[in-house]
Amino acid sequence: MNSTGLIYRLTSFGESHGCAIGGVVEGVPAGVRLDIDAIQAFMARRRPGQSTITTQRNEQDQVEFLSGIFEGVTTGTPIGFIVRNNDSRSSDYEAMRHVFRPSHADYTYTAKYGHRDHRGGGRSSARVTIATCVAGAIALQILEQMGVTVRAYTSQIGPIALPHDYTAYDLTTIDSNAVRCPDTKVAEHMEALIKEVRSEGDSVGGIVTCVIQGVPAGWGEPIYDKLHADLGKAILNINAVKGFEYGMGFAGVTKRGSQVYDIFEAQEGHITTRTNHSGGIQGGITNGADIYFRAAFKPTPTLLQPIESVTTTGEATTLESNGRHDPCVVPRAIPVVEAATAMVLLDHYMRNKTTLL
Amino acid sequence: MNSTGLIYRLTSFGESHGCAIGGVVEGVPAGVRLDIDAIQAFMARRRPGQSTITTQRNEQDQVEFLSGIFEGVTTGTPIGFIVRNNDSRSSDYEAMRHVFRPSHADYTYTAKYGHRDHRGGGRSSARVTIATCVAGAIALQILEQMGVTVRAYTSQIGPIALPHDYTAYDLTTIDSNAVRCPDTKVAEHMEALIKEVRSEGDSVGGIVTCVIQGVPAGWGEPIYDKLHADLGKAILNINAVKGFEYGMGFAGVTKRGSQVYDIFEAQEGHITTRTNHSGGIQGGITNGADIYFRAAFKPTPTLLQPIESVTTTGEATTLESNGRHDPCVVPRAIPVVEAATAMVLLDHYMRNKTTLL
Amino acid sequence: MNSTGLIYRLTSFGESHGCAIGGVVEGVPAGVRLDIDAIQAFMARRRPGQSTITTQRNEQDQVEFLSGIFEGVTTGTPIGFIVRNNDSRSSDYEAMRHVFRPSHADYTYTAKYGHRDHRGGGRSSARVTIATCVAGAIALQILEQMGVTVRAYTSQIGPIALPHDYTAYDLTTIDSNAVRCPDTKVAEHMEALIKEVRSEGDSVGGIVTCVIQGVPAGWGEPIYDKLHADLGKAILNINAVKGFEYGMGFAGVTKRGSQVYDIFEAQEGHITTRTNHSGGIQGGITNGADIYFRAAFKPTPTLLQPIESVTTTGEATTLESNGRHDPCVVPRAIPVVEAATAMVLLDHYMRNKTTLL
Amino acid sequence: MNSTGLIYRLTSFGESHGCAIGGVVEGVPAGVRLDIDAIQAFMARRRPGQSTITTQRNEQDQVEFLSGIFEGVTTGTPIGFIVRNNDSRSSDYEAMRHVFRPSHADYTYTAKYGHRDHRGGGRSSARVTIATCVAGAIALQILEQMGVTVRAYTSQIGPIALPHDYTAYDLTTIDSNAVRCPDTKVAEHMEALIKEVRSEGDSVGGIVTCVIQGVPAGWGEPIYDKLHADLGKAILNINAVKGFEYGMGFAGVTKRGSQVYDIFEAQEGHITTRTNHSGGIQGGITNGADIYFRAAFKPTPTLLQPIESVTTTGEATTLESNGRHDPCVVPRAIPVVEAATAMVLLDHYMRNKTTLL
Repeated sequence: MNSTGLIYRLTSFGESHGCAIGGVVEGVPAGVRLDIDAIQAFMARRRPGQSTITTQRNEQDQVEFLSGIFEGVTTGTPIGFIVRNNDSRSSDYEAMRHVFRPSHADYTYTAKYGHRDHRGGGRSSARVTIATCVAGAIALQILEQMGVTVRAYTSQIGPIALPHDYTAYDLTTIDSNAVRCPDTKVAEHMEALIKEVRSEGDSVGGIVTCVIQGVPAGWGEPIYDKLHADLGKAILNINAVKGFEYGMGFAGVTKRGSQVYDIFEAQEGHITTRTNHSGGIQGGITNGADIYFRAAFKPTPTLLQPIESVTTTGEATTLESNGRHDPCVVPRAIPVVEAATAMVLLDHYMRNKTTLL
Repeated sequence: MNSTGLIYRLTSFGESHGCAIGGVVEGVPAGVRLDIDAIQAFMARRRPGQSTITTQRNEQDQVEFLSGIFEGVTTGTPIGFIVRNNDSRSSDYEAMRHVFRPSHADYTYTAKYGHRDHRGGGRSSARVTIATCVAGAIALQILEQMGVTVRAYTSQIGPIALPHDYTAYDLTTIDSNAVRCPDTKVAEHMEALIKEVRSEGDSVGGIVTCVIQGVPAGWGEPIYDKLHADLGKAILNINAVKGFEYGMGFAGVTKRGSQVYDIFEAQEGHITTRTNHSGGIQGGITNGADIYFRAAFKPTPTLLQPIESVTTTGEATTLESNGRHDPCVVPRAIPVVEAATAMVLLDHYMRNKTTLL
Repeated sequence: MNSTGLIYRLTSFGESHGCAIGGVVEGVPAGVRLDIDAIQAFMARRRPGQSTITTQRNEQDQVEFLSGIFEGVTTGTPIGFIVRNNDSRSSDYEAMRHVFRPSHADYTYTAKYGHRDHRGGGRSSARVTIATCVAGAIALQILEQMGVTVRAYTSQIGPIALPHDYTAYDLTTIDSNAVRCPDTKVAEHMEALIKEVRSEGDSVGGIVTCVIQGVPAGWGEPIYDKLHADLGKAILNINAVKGFEYGMGFAGVTKRGSQVYDIFEAQEGHITTRTNHSGGIQGGITNGADIYFRAAFKPTPTLLQPIESVTTTGEATTLESNGRHDPCVVPRAIPVVEAATAMVLLDHYMRNKTTLL
Repeated sequence: MNSTGLIYRLTSFGESHGCAIGGVVEGVPAGVRLDIDAIQAFMARRRPGQSTITTQRNEQDQVEFLSGIFEGVTTGTPIGFIVRNNDSRSSDYEAMRHVFRPSHADYTYTAKYGHRDHRGGGRSSARVTIATCVAGAIALQILEQMGVTVRAYTSQIGPIALPHDYTAYDLTTIDSNAVRCPDTKVAEHMEALIKEVRSEGDSVGGIVTCVIQGVPAGWGEPIYDKLHADLGKAILNINAVKGFEYGMGFAGVTKRGSQVYDIFEAQEGHITTRTNHSGGIQGGITNGADIYFRAAFKPTPTLLQPIESVTTTGEATTLESNGRHDPCVVPRAIPVVEAATAMVLLDHYMRNKTTLL
């Protein structure tokens, strides 16, 4: 389906080269004054053409809000929005009408739906994360009013990884470089790698780390909507994500239980944990500590080199791409990760309000 | 919430030491002859006391079906079922009434709900995966009739990992050893490690790999219910899971796009891929290749050694555990992973039936 | 599906002559002390054999709670429950295996599912309202703690109707007669009619009126889950209901707008309405006035006289019924109406908690 | 919430005097060629200013489709659409900023949300049925391809009622008069009544009958989503509806069971019913006979005469309305009823596809 969330809920629509990407945000609490300029500024972090290491497609991604806000304040009714697709040079894609690009969704969409909008990937394009970003930007503002911050950053590009965990960095500086890595020195290496990869007509993957601070104990659900599972699903739904881990993640596998249980401490009646291998969530519910997770992004299959493929009728062919693609999707994915995360958090905040009478 | 799935849907209930664990399975197609003995045999793969490396609690986990099956055949109405809790030595847990066990959900449940059933973790116990197993066992039978197989196995315990990917092993032999690893030699090392860890009163983590074969192209949904995201959520909801990756997963991060795109091949009008870095899913929808993923299980925090903790009123205390816990949850988690996977697949098969008129 | 409600949610299962009727109640707020005896007493108002004008089947309808309640108090986790089917003389129904009873669901279930459990109507039996009653009885207790009362009563049997609206009667006396009509005199006429109809081997319909008091302004949702629409759906889902109207209902059709708009009055800052043609709901949301509605129950098609029908293979046949059926379902439907209503109200109370931050 | 349907699903947004009304339609089957002109023509049946007996507001209600349709054919992805609000003379409503109009939702929205968009009723305006009409018009086209027709008509205005049931009329002629009544003579009386009522500055109610033909046996769900209950909810969600009945409805209450059970007949293996008191649905599932229901519309509270009310701070005041309102909403509600009905039917058709493997 095209909806996500139970109470704070986004239903999206739109194809890469259709008229518009848009959506409906339900469950926005009434009475919140929204900063529309801040939402637009957030969108600018995702839009193409923002730096020398992203695609040079020029899309302004101007959000038009159509409902749910009255005299600057949310009314509690759904917020409808659209972002027009302006720079859609659909003719660029005519060659793809009869070809399945490898490791894209061209073939699977056709297998499922019988035909497809071949222009720029249609609905499978990463451009549809625009809707996630709008709904997430609203959620981020509301969370901020509650003292909750969500900060994602690039922790690895190809083999170049940050040496420390998030506690070693100042996460407010993430946007100071094009890669969105909190260590300037490492960021330079990452940027150089991305440029090198691009010059070879290739692409490279990376890892995004996300840190959530300020969530009190008690958010989340047991069993089938555990908070980390909802976060995992939201992140795995982002284009190019192949893996998700939270807390100690895969690295915990080689540890002994005695090394990684988080000992409780009580200070003035307030219970915290001495360590945080759990990643702020135990049994699907927050414990008040920082929540952190990592997402693996694959190197995208859109390359500036001839690639082998087949036509829709099964003949072998060779695909040549134009030059307007990201050699690494990670820097532009940072706001998408934050947005997807914020939606899950606000939804669970709302759900948690129904726990007691 | 306590439900999972849109069409093939399980709603579960039950606490570890309450009267029973149970659930309602909706969306079971009508007219299917079920093999009840096979379901019970599947449950036996999860139950405690099944081998020398699991907890010695003796629970028979007998499933009682209460509805939805008439003269051996599903009627299309919901299947209600219960599994009584028999060996619940609740007095064992009286000491835990006023203590928060570290890295368990005792504290977070109390923070959320105000109080908790302290006996054996209550609803946060891994015992509630019984409901997943029942609904999954039904789904597995139905999928099997459609030619779809789901096979999970232990691919790593602590630092001991299988050297090859799933294609190197005969996955039908998984149950031939207690660890559920398809390589007998490696299984012996794993089992030895688990026993060593237990003798030290400690615990160890591991990785489960799961392989799905026989799914045709076209199952799955775009955008917010991508098949791999639904799988990821289902797996992350299993107790002790800290990470999920599919296809090339985290390892793909260091690759170049040119190394990992899956070239299509057409043989007699049938389109396949030469490699399978994608893990059988592109854009959230299956492409007909094998689906495979990995799940990271943490070392559980229930240890046979004194551990530091706090009481519910914040005083420091020391917890001593009895001896009836799994030093490694991975072997018993294998059927749970298969069950959770099967539910997602059958749900998406059903959803896919509504794609065309 | 077999679920109802978004937050306060029941998922039910069970057939008339299967092992048990049961369900799972989710969204029960934590920390509520439940009166189990009161729930059982509520069930007794629905059960067969309770008076001389109902079926003489003898079912105790003992509810067994399996989870979600710890030391008498709700834990916030789902409440699973079952009611065993004891007096199921299934052999009584063997004759119906190959016959479609007219105006029952025998034919439609077979058309949909391919086969059916023919014993006592299977899942289409009114016996499955047991699950509604359990979940509703819990909701009623919680609503009562909030000052909300839900009272249904018999306002018409066949042509015999109460002459006044609900404000003329003492609704606390409803259970003082077998018909559940608040006017003793009229109740006698109704009871006499039901006995007469039964002696003729026939059945008769009736109307249930339901009154909800104590709901503050602001519960409900706009557009697609209007409170009265959710109430209407809940009531129409009850077996034998053919119509629902609230406020002025069908009678309002012949009125002029100037006669029926509810003029507001403000007394000490508190806004009320002088009249209540709206039935306590405006635009799908409560205004603080009494909510009231009416439901039409058809005369059931189970008759103590030979009736014409067809076999499952299409041959004409004649059906003879045994004597254990209700000549009028209305008296036993009263608690079902109250239960269904209470579930909708509690669900909307919970949903309303997410309107503001 | 602002969504309706499980598979064929509309999520709507928009206020009467905001930028636009719009929505997202999910679950549209792929591969359907849509007639966009026909959808726009359907919208014209709802729009204001269409005849001398409706409001003279001039709104073109031009639908702009933004996604989900590629080269005229549905892609299976969501159809986003908007209808701009053009003739919104918001200044007309400035006087209502601080007044609660009686029997409208002004007060209840304020009670729930804390503030409201006072212009033209905001989201509570009947103008939001535009979204229902768009999604319904699409559903109607798809149903028509399947041989299913949905036809609503005016069967009563004030006390003037059609003397016969639907079988007596040619339902294809409904649009031949402004009232949308299939009996031209009666239509003249109705129209005269509406004009008379308008001249008095008053309003009048009415009844809409809706008939669905061509649905095979087997659509619908048991227990909590019975087809007639979903229809009832959809209809009760339409502005001004106070009652819903199907089949024999309220009139059946005074009948005996022996008079109204629908005897089956088998003709060449095909089972039908001799009569149709059931209204085409038994146990929540269709039996292949015509489905028919009736909806009661109240006389709207917007009058061309001074009416008593209170301000938002509780002072008594008098409201004067301008002249751009419908004296009777029934004629323009006909397409809304058809649209809401079609959505439910297509949703249940889709759901029914998941009954068997």
